[in-house]
Amino acid sequence: MDLPVYQATNLHTRVEEITSHWTPQHIATVNGSHSLKLATISGPFIWHSHPETDELFLCVSGGPFNIELCTTASSPAEAEKLGADQVVRMKVGDVFNVPKGMQHRPMAEGEPAGILMVEKVGTVNTGDRDGDEEGRRRTVHVEER
Amino acid sequence: MDLPVYQATNLHTRVEEITSHWTPQHIATVNGSHSLKLATISGPFIWHSHPETDELFLCVSGGPFNIELCTTASSPAEAEKLGADQVVRMKVGDVFNVPKGMQHRPMAEGEPAGILMVEKVGTVNTGDRDGDEEGRRRTVHVEER
Repeated sequence: MDLPVYQATNLHTRVEEITSHWTPQHIATVNGSHSLKLATISGPFIWHSHPETDELFLCVSGGPFNIELCTTASSPAEAEKLGADQVVRMKVGDVFNVPKGMQHRPMAEGEPAGILMVEKVGTVNTGDRDGDEEGRRRTVHVEER
Repeated sequence: MDLPVYQATNLHTRVEEITSHWTPQHIATVNGSHSLKLATISGPFIWHSHPETDELFLCVSGGPFNIELCTTASSPAEAEKLGADQVVRMKVGDVFNVPKGMQHRPMAEGEPAGILMVEKVGTVNTGDRDGDEEGRRRTVHVEER
């Protein structure tokens, strides 16, 4: 029997290889239930929530960036109207868990940032919405191995 | 109603504050099922496995260190007898998932390393064993909030 070859994946190397912002790459699956995904982000994302999963962020490189939260909104439209009522400032090494169902919007106003996310397998980056105000699609489907 | 205050946790700051190696600190819980824990490691740990959970490692600082694997052993005693048949070299930014039930032994022979682990809530650091060859206890119970 051939032994499986185990190799580590380097987040910094992988960040360097990413060519499109807001396009999560699958890094690892833990227990078949949770995925680690890596992305680079630049500028504002769109308000959304993940009704079925927490989404933990770790700032791997670049930034700092903000995670805007609208803790009282129950829809992306409401979050857009109300705006952020909490802002989490994320620098390299910072970890923050966005609770399930909470409207949030990552926003990298300065340097692009490399971010690692931990969330349930099958989570879609745009959560409970699709497209931005101008109808541009922001949803990316990620193959999880 | 007071709004909750959301603050990021910085892994590098937390690593600096750790005073004992091999003593995981709880960082965050994702979906009530998975914990992120941070530890510093120096020297060899003991062979063990986690029969109920994968254990993902991310090297946050220091190192490099090795994760020795014995992919054929079904107990810590067997792993100790057979020794490693795979070694994963871990440098800063490296991610590796040790599959559920696989005998492994982290080993930081050079600089101490700061490591982040992702695993099921309630996982005990020593898995399916307790104490080392000389009977010293290595198990640390971690309060997960």
